[in-house]
Amino acid sequence: MEKQDLLRKPVEHIDIKTFDARPVINGYASMAFQARNLAVARDIYNRMLADRDCKIILTLAGSLFSAGLKHVVADMIDNNMVDGIVSTGAIIVDQDFFEAIGFRHYIGSQFVDDVVLRELAIDRIYDTFIDEDELRICDMTIAEIADTLPPRPHSSREVIHAMGAYLEEKGLKAERSVVYSAYKKGVPIFVPAFSDCSAGFGLVYHQWHKKDAHVTIDSVRDFRELTEIKMAVRDTGIIMVGGGVPKNFTQDVVVATEILGKEKPMHKYAIQLTVADERDGGLSGSTLKEACSWGKVDLKYEQMIFGEATIILPLLVSDAYHQGVWKKRPQGNLAGLFKNDSEIA
Amino acid sequence: MEKQDLLRKPVEHIDIKTFDARPVINGYASMAFQARNLAVARDIYNRMLADRDCKIILTLAGSLFSAGLKHVVADMIDNNMVDGIVSTGAIIVDQDFFEAIGFRHYIGSQFVDDVVLRELAIDRIYDTFIDEDELRICDMTIAEIADTLPPRPHSSREVIHAMGAYLEEKGLKAERSVVYSAYKKGVPIFVPAFSDCSAGFGLVYHQWHKKDAHVTIDSVRDFRELTEIKMAVRDTGIIMVGGGVPKNFTQDVVVATEILGKEKPMHKYAIQLTVADERDGGLSGSTLKEACSWGKVDLKYEQMIFGEATIILPLLVSDAYHQGVWKKRPQGNLAGLFKNDSEIA
Amino acid sequence: MEKQDLLRKPVEHIDIKTFDARPVINGYASMAFQARNLAVARDIYNRMLADRDCKIILTLAGSLFSAGLKHVVADMIDNNMVDGIVSTGAIIVDQDFFEAIGFRHYIGSQFVDDVVLRELAIDRIYDTFIDEDELRICDMTIAEIADTLPPRPHSSREVIHAMGAYLEEKGLKAERSVVYSAYKKGVPIFVPAFSDCSAGFGLVYHQWHKKDAHVTIDSVRDFRELTEIKMAVRDTGIIMVGGGVPKNFTQDVVVATEILGKEKPMHKYAIQLTVADERDGGLSGSTLKEACSWGKVDLKYEQMIFGEATIILPLLVSDAYHQGVWKKRPQGNLAGLFKNDSEIA
Amino acid sequence: MEKQDLLRKPVEHIDIKTFDARPVINGYASMAFQARNLAVARDIYNRMLADRDCKIILTLAGSLFSAGLKHVVADMIDNNMVDGIVSTGAIIVDQDFFEAIGFRHYIGSQFVDDVVLRELAIDRIYDTFIDEDELRICDMTIAEIADTLPPRPHSSREVIHAMGAYLEEKGLKAERSVVYSAYKKGVPIFVPAFSDCSAGFGLVYHQWHKKDAHVTIDSVRDFRELTEIKMAVRDTGIIMVGGGVPKNFTQDVVVATEILGKEKPMHKYAIQLTVADERDGGLSGSTLKEACSWGKVDLKYEQMIFGEATIILPLLVSDAYHQGVWKKRPQGNLAGLFKNDSEIA
Repeated sequence: MEKQDLLRKPVEHIDIKTFDARPVINGYASMAFQARNLAVARDIYNRMLADRDCKIILTLAGSLFSAGLKHVVADMIDNNMVDGIVSTGAIIVDQDFFEAIGFRHYIGSQFVDDVVLRELAIDRIYDTFIDEDELRICDMTIAEIADTLPPRPHSSREVIHAMGAYLEEKGLKAERSVVYSAYKKGVPIFVPAFSDCSAGFGLVYHQWHKKDAHVTIDSVRDFRELTEIKMAVRDTGIIMVGGGVPKNFTQDVVVATEILGKEKPMHKYAIQLTVADERDGGLSGSTLKEACSWGKVDLKYEQMIFGEATIILPLLVSDAYHQGVWKKRPQGNLAGLFKNDSEIA
Repeated sequence: MEKQDLLRKPVEHIDIKTFDARPVINGYASMAFQARNLAVARDIYNRMLADRDCKIILTLAGSLFSAGLKHVVADMIDNNMVDGIVSTGAIIVDQDFFEAIGFRHYIGSQFVDDVVLRELAIDRIYDTFIDEDELRICDMTIAEIADTLPPRPHSSREVIHAMGAYLEEKGLKAERSVVYSAYKKGVPIFVPAFSDCSAGFGLVYHQWHKKDAHVTIDSVRDFRELTEIKMAVRDTGIIMVGGGVPKNFTQDVVVATEILGKEKPMHKYAIQLTVADERDGGLSGSTLKEACSWGKVDLKYEQMIFGEATIILPLLVSDAYHQGVWKKRPQGNLAGLFKNDSEIA
Repeated sequence: MEKQDLLRKPVEHIDIKTFDARPVINGYASMAFQARNLAVARDIYNRMLADRDCKIILTLAGSLFSAGLKHVVADMIDNNMVDGIVSTGAIIVDQDFFEAIGFRHYIGSQFVDDVVLRELAIDRIYDTFIDEDELRICDMTIAEIADTLPPRPHSSREVIHAMGAYLEEKGLKAERSVVYSAYKKGVPIFVPAFSDCSAGFGLVYHQWHKKDAHVTIDSVRDFRELTEIKMAVRDTGIIMVGGGVPKNFTQDVVVATEILGKEKPMHKYAIQLTVADERDGGLSGSTLKEACSWGKVDLKYEQMIFGEATIILPLLVSDAYHQGVWKKRPQGNLAGLFKNDSEIA
Repeated sequence: MEKQDLLRKPVEHIDIKTFDARPVINGYASMAFQARNLAVARDIYNRMLADRDCKIILTLAGSLFSAGLKHVVADMIDNNMVDGIVSTGAIIVDQDFFEAIGFRHYIGSQFVDDVVLRELAIDRIYDTFIDEDELRICDMTIAEIADTLPPRPHSSREVIHAMGAYLEEKGLKAERSVVYSAYKKGVPIFVPAFSDCSAGFGLVYHQWHKKDAHVTIDSVRDFRELTEIKMAVRDTGIIMVGGGVPKNFTQDVVVATEILGKEKPMHKYAIQLTVADERDGGLSGSTLKEACSWGKVDLKYEQMIFGEATIILPLLVSDAYHQGVWKKRPQGNLAGLFKNDSEIA
């Protein structure tokens, strides 16, 4: 078997503009279980979009973009349906930026011999294949970008902004990119564990070869910047896809405002879509009600949906897209809070 | 709090004819994970419907009809999209027949004090409420029907047929009913654990008060009849919603044909939609590949979908409905295999 | 590959007498999450055992005995730690009785080609292998036993009692058997979906070849008999391993006593060990609090444990075994409620 | 209700030295499903401990220490059963360090009104309660420590080392601490998302008040340091409790050695204990076989265990503790690879 035999059919991103999920979710609204939960979440999302005082933060965890959800998020950005993003590194770098610089994910299978894949330098994400050699190019592109940045502590937001500028400069626009759309639309993207992905490989390479003067990634600055956002706006709504660090980090900013003596209200709206279970006490499955005990999430408009994102997220966003509340919603431009030299304005 | 305060808003059944899920599932087709699995399952279902030699058996487990999926199944029956059903008792008796005789399920909440519900005689299914007094009427209606049947062993299919006849006779057609639609369309319904539901209460009451001569439910006859069907048809496809006894029972008929010396091919097509996990070795989460080792399911056209039925089943069936393959598909009339006096023809 | 190459290493049943789990569970008692839940469940089980007015019903679902838990249940029976059992058919017939007549389950693997297994007539349960030819012998043994029984409706309890008598008569005692232990100790075993297992194959063969006069399995009689037990005793405690029909059936008897005008209290004690989740509304994952709304389970002494039975059940029973409350507990002899001719006394 | 009424009974950490889990796991060894998996994992752990060329990295995610597992890890450190730790921040700071400076977690309940908890300033982790005011003291202690550190980029390892030194200096040894044990035994602890916890609050406070010169947390340095460790040792074994960033980060170092041109072998041994499922494609549930396709984990000695840590981890470690292979195992002293001034030696 040749490598190319396994990398033939690329994953295609779903386009939520090609179907109107509103009648589907309307059908769910008076049912039970997760269908009804999805309908409630849809109402909350539409309510967030209509609330002029509310900025919307989307948190992303799980292999979402390799699975075909990239354009869903790109459409949210392009249509002012989200104002800030907090994500795992894999989604933003290994998946989004990776495709932006010309590579693809491939339809694969979980019923395969991983030793064979190893020999072919094919990486597997459940039923999806990636060319490992292409991932190495992605790593090195990050190293190359880091080499151009001033040798000082950066937030992940700054580096991701630089990645957007790189795409602009190189004219790499063949494939839609969340990093690029966010760059253009002033939507800041934070990756609180930025070294835990392809960026980590690129940056460790950068630091290794620039021992004396190099970029560092200050994750405290990320937290400080996201807290700045919370302090700068009136209300916030959060849409959490999966759990992990992005979920916790984003909820925590409410507490951070208090610690800095600038107490702000809890997140006014909250939706979480997850397959995780609360019974092991892990954060990813912890409920929004639990988050209220911590003073992070208000309980008036909150909804958990238990389910897998590839099926459910396109329905949620398609509904909101076709509902069209976003048409009257101004660009959030939260990136504008930060000066070019990356200091908090 | 009064009982009626909690029983205000009835669950409404989703109507898969009001939206066309094809573009949604087309969008899923080149993604990954469960979205892609759903698209593969959709293709298999459409293939089953187009296969003139194939009869389709639907297995049902979980609180599906109380959750608003009743009309999905009724539409499958009315449009020749399914030929036989194997179900848990709760779905067919406590939920379908219960609504047919005039009662409803109500939108409730899981965040409630169950002791208060107990005192109000409200039964809870996760986020759904039921009037327990109405359930008792349902039990007694089954007892009343049993009183009219000959005092001999019956298959569950026979009693459910009698329940359909009862609805016809009483003119109880206000609300659509799967039991009634199946009765009219010649779709046999089997409930292999028939005493494990409202029917069990009615029948135990019947036997208790008719000590000398009463209806008995011969679950072996159920198995024999379903095996008869397998022997009478060329190929079979199975759609399994949830696991449990209906799943196992239906898969087992292939083996039963062999034991009776009339060996038939494995189920040619198989789809399972479940939230259960295979890692505890339980049957509900066991894979279709595992079923192949038992000689029950062929592997050419099989697909598991990991997800919750309220969201996913309407998409699957809406796609097939709008695809319209069923328009050229004749009525299966598997009920016609059985004589009126309930003996195998 | 030869069949015997895959059937070399038999599953061995864990012996809870060889270790004392009390210090382990004592360590869990002041922790959190499932460890603490297990400690609470342990206290409830010991409380049940000490309550002279309480009869204990064990419900079993999942492939528990093929996985090595058979002796755990046999020890419960032999030491008066359980008074009645409600189970799936596979556990009692395909797994327990199957081993009693001389066969074994084998350590296998889930990473295997099921088509190869199919060709070798090896059946797979996740990571366990079974010789399909031996299963066919088990089926035919049930047919043979059925041939000796009077041609009338039987409860599953009666047939399982006859299976115990068969083992006694044939001197098949090489391997410990729950069916046999229960036969000797007067512990009735009910299988509400008795045709959904190897017994179904045997009985369908029996009925097919004895068209005019044959055994039938009246699942209503099962329900009636279990209700008789509930009416005959003062209090009941239930230990549920997995969910499914055994769980629901056993909880339902409380309601059945009410329907027969002999209302009895809810189950006083309840423990459930399950991996199922409540969020899909399925019965297997439904909470004991939900069961209270139905009037089935009292909330004073109830505990759910989220976890897999092979690891957890041995700990729970080992603790109770070594605690030794059972030493003063009389034999329940619930089987004595039923006359030899299988009528309710 | 007063706050103190809900904060009465502290969580007590299980002591794996007080029971010998070896006979329990021996009983699991020839069973099936997760019991057998646990026995295989135990064999792999003992094999790691006996392998003189192998350093052992433990990754931690989930609310493990608030749940009573702190002493399990402390015993691993104190007895040379682990050489490095990669964790979420909550475990190390909010839970371990928090208890080290004199606070406790309390036995609570998930059946509680979170709005009431909010008003009482009690934070909830499923069934566990925390005094929010005490957490704020923990945050400020981190700020205080940061104030004493040189204003330059630090790895999380360096700050955690400083936290150990703080405990030493202040004589805070009333309660055993993993941070302190690791400090004494030369076991480096990495928290790749260090700002995503109480430390984040403390550090954001520190930076806010020391605008001109402050500590930054360079997560790339964390990655570089962990990669240094991988390059310095011959073989590695990993024990992963939960998934998340610690899992991915630790697996990734193999690839990082390759990127730095110092290619090292894959992790030779790997165990993962998780409740996550692979079917949503998320990293936490991704299998070790999948990790092999990425060139991260060798397949010769790897085992997944599906289950919850509070019950299973104590069994695994108690077995290894009593097996005693660690008695001949030298202290790993991986912390010695790093100079006092926090530069890679």
